[in-house]
Amino acid sequence: MLNPQLNSQGELIHLLTTEGLPKRILNQILDRAAEYIAAGDAGTRKFNALAGRSVFNLFFENSTRTRTTFEIAAKRLSADVTSLNIQASSTAKGETLLDTIQNLEAMGADMFVVRHAQSGAPYLIAEHAKPGIAVVNAGDGRHAHPTQALLDMYTIRHYKGDFTQLRVAIVGDILHSRVARSDIHALSTLGCPEIRVIAPKTLLPVGIESLGVHVYHDMAAGLKDVDVVIMLRVQNERMSGAFLPSTQEFFKYYGLTPEKLAHAHPDAIVMHPGPMNRGVEIDSAVADGDRAVILPQVTFGIAVRMAVMAIVSENQRGQGAQA
Amino acid sequence: MLNPQLNSQGELIHLLTTEGLPKRILNQILDRAAEYIAAGDAGTRKFNALAGRSVFNLFFENSTRTRTTFEIAAKRLSADVTSLNIQASSTAKGETLLDTIQNLEAMGADMFVVRHAQSGAPYLIAEHAKPGIAVVNAGDGRHAHPTQALLDMYTIRHYKGDFTQLRVAIVGDILHSRVARSDIHALSTLGCPEIRVIAPKTLLPVGIESLGVHVYHDMAAGLKDVDVVIMLRVQNERMSGAFLPSTQEFFKYYGLTPEKLAHAHPDAIVMHPGPMNRGVEIDSAVADGDRAVILPQVTFGIAVRMAVMAIVSENQRGQGAQA
Amino acid sequence: MLNPQLNSQGELIHLLTTEGLPKRILNQILDRAAEYIAAGDAGTRKFNALAGRSVFNLFFENSTRTRTTFEIAAKRLSADVTSLNIQASSTAKGETLLDTIQNLEAMGADMFVVRHAQSGAPYLIAEHAKPGIAVVNAGDGRHAHPTQALLDMYTIRHYKGDFTQLRVAIVGDILHSRVARSDIHALSTLGCPEIRVIAPKTLLPVGIESLGVHVYHDMAAGLKDVDVVIMLRVQNERMSGAFLPSTQEFFKYYGLTPEKLAHAHPDAIVMHPGPMNRGVEIDSAVADGDRAVILPQVTFGIAVRMAVMAIVSENQRGQGAQA
Repeated sequence: MLNPQLNSQGELIHLLTTEGLPKRILNQILDRAAEYIAAGDAGTRKFNALAGRSVFNLFFENSTRTRTTFEIAAKRLSADVTSLNIQASSTAKGETLLDTIQNLEAMGADMFVVRHAQSGAPYLIAEHAKPGIAVVNAGDGRHAHPTQALLDMYTIRHYKGDFTQLRVAIVGDILHSRVARSDIHALSTLGCPEIRVIAPKTLLPVGIESLGVHVYHDMAAGLKDVDVVIMLRVQNERMSGAFLPSTQEFFKYYGLTPEKLAHAHPDAIVMHPGPMNRGVEIDSAVADGDRAVILPQVTFGIAVRMAVMAIVSENQRGQGAQA
Repeated sequence: MLNPQLNSQGELIHLLTTEGLPKRILNQILDRAAEYIAAGDAGTRKFNALAGRSVFNLFFENSTRTRTTFEIAAKRLSADVTSLNIQASSTAKGETLLDTIQNLEAMGADMFVVRHAQSGAPYLIAEHAKPGIAVVNAGDGRHAHPTQALLDMYTIRHYKGDFTQLRVAIVGDILHSRVARSDIHALSTLGCPEIRVIAPKTLLPVGIESLGVHVYHDMAAGLKDVDVVIMLRVQNERMSGAFLPSTQEFFKYYGLTPEKLAHAHPDAIVMHPGPMNRGVEIDSAVADGDRAVILPQVTFGIAVRMAVMAIVSENQRGQGAQA
Repeated sequence: MLNPQLNSQGELIHLLTTEGLPKRILNQILDRAAEYIAAGDAGTRKFNALAGRSVFNLFFENSTRTRTTFEIAAKRLSADVTSLNIQASSTAKGETLLDTIQNLEAMGADMFVVRHAQSGAPYLIAEHAKPGIAVVNAGDGRHAHPTQALLDMYTIRHYKGDFTQLRVAIVGDILHSRVARSDIHALSTLGCPEIRVIAPKTLLPVGIESLGVHVYHDMAAGLKDVDVVIMLRVQNERMSGAFLPSTQEFFKYYGLTPEKLAHAHPDAIVMHPGPMNRGVEIDSAVADGDRAVILPQVTFGIAVRMAVMAIVSENQRGQGAQA
């Protein structure tokens, strides 16, 4: 099967998932993001990569934070940005998803940034989008959240340099996490030799080992000597009922405290996609401590989203070579 | 009575209705829109006509689609655009409509794009607006939707060239449709010799014949040899109760199917203002068929709105002559 | 205690309150605003003071009008503006105020415009903001509304020239009014020799005399020979119950009618922060009369907000001297 993210020259034209994304593409994105970070440090914060282009943020699932990061990234690339909360829009009038997309294309859309509660929705849109229109997945169901994974990779590369010697642990609600899936695929491709997941059995998908990860149910064992700890957000709605007994219980066994973190390598970094539930999956002493790189993740996230948007836009216009 | 849309030199300074709008103004708008379409095809998508100007989208009635098209059009003309959902705003605090308008004028507004459930609201605003401030009607009650009519005229001219040999049928809920009214006035002015309306008696306004249209209650007869079919959206809330027995019943008699469309001229085009109710007023086989020009309508709609905004802005500033 | 609004050179780096703000800073803001007004009159409406800068409007309390004025002001300075309605955002997910702020800083925020129902919230943000990031208070609880006070001062200076000979009366719900507090501090600093407050006892804070104002409960006496009348908005929710018997009763005793205004100096100006409750605190004959300067206040408000944003941004970047 062809990878719908790549054109016939193997260039990125949509970003839908990190699964199956070649290492050279991952590195291209991280390298471009590094250029934006360097330019920003040198005082340059506006670029022309999307000047005159129309970017539509289509958020079928509400997420002010992620929507804001994409809006900022697009504006720094000089795009015209329109954010649509689709519940409030025409779908309420009975229009289908593809009718909505075709209408926005007819209005002159160049890029769709899509968040949807349904896994696969961004694929459907990419499949039906006219040539020249890029789709960026901003999170679909439990499936994928590729820009989060890319900013995580940027963060790890920034602090650790080389992936081929690292032990990385992903901790928490693996079952419902599109971040965990996308991180695992990206880490594998980038050559990370040891990826661990740490979670209670009720929060692990069946067959997770097939992705090449090592499963732990105990933090002391799972965090032993790791270089990177990626904490996941626990959704409050999982906290009572079938999945988890209580917030207190979860924090006791899986909340990242200084004591549990002491099992990791002394130079380990702590990551979190945000927003954090302090006292649930992470202790404030760790969240605000000197090993947390959670706020740098946010900064890198803007640069990574700028990189993705610039690259897919260039490739859609056939400018990948000269860019 | 003076036409409040025109200044003393007969130039367009507000767009409130297509009724009584001279043919030369209609053609001026269509010609300017054609320039924007041509420029876009040649790769130029940003213009300076509204640079430094403040456009306010005042939507007293929610319409994400229409609001979005005006936002995009204004941004492509380099305006600063502010969209206000007025239910959420000061009117909730007891401020009157004209207080709101005067306040926005004092903030430096140059143009108001107004949608309102009450017929005539844009007139009231235009009447009280300070000199130099343009008002564009984006739909008022059952009264008028002039930019929709203008994009419809653009579409017909694009595909058919000349209005003076055309048979045009407008189909569906004529009674509640501001689009139908605005289309009829524009078609008449542009010289269309035969305008038909096709609808059940409960969805026809009393005295519609006075507008010079021919009334049909039967699709086979009404569509016979027409060159253009303009379908109207049926509001779901009309579907049960006094106006219509049911969705199925309406589709059976007035839904546009390939069979019914076969009565029209073989080259007939099918138009719809969107969003479509597939299976109610239009069959998907027609909506997605090769005679539908529904998506081009959307593209032309951006260019027509750009043209209207640019022209009224120039004329308000007394630059109509040199523009 | 140090003034958190000023840096070590005594330059404005945040605008939190007019209390304790030196006269030279007040005049600096008014002078800069006058430059923007003059430029606008001469046809220049866009400036580069905030080009490439990211301004976040953080409205924890809804106010379309104030948010809009800050958006317009920021866009005229060429900023990238993002408005967040914070109830709808991450705080709903349990994130703390300071987590939200730190995240927006990490996204590259340069300025926060903050409205909050809790007095002191903008101080908390300014205290924790990273160096280089400016905070502008757009109204906090009953505490302060400094940009409203500054636009009031601009208006008075525009019409009256000199503060040192003026009698100013502030009328209405002093108890709940952040505008009244901020006006009193600014008027005192600018040398206004006689500040009066006129209100029923239930709408006056205890100890208001300590601010140097003269208290009146009667309009005829309180308005006697004043040069400036600042009406306050009466919140409808105060109107039934403990504070006030009824709207009619309030209008009878404290609503500004032409008859009551006749007690003031013949050249007195009438101000109101808007939106007005016509027939409650102000009669339409006064609101629309020739002594009302309520709409010019709105115009000056844009320029004053531009001035504040430009000045704090320059000073945060250490460019105060050359600017």
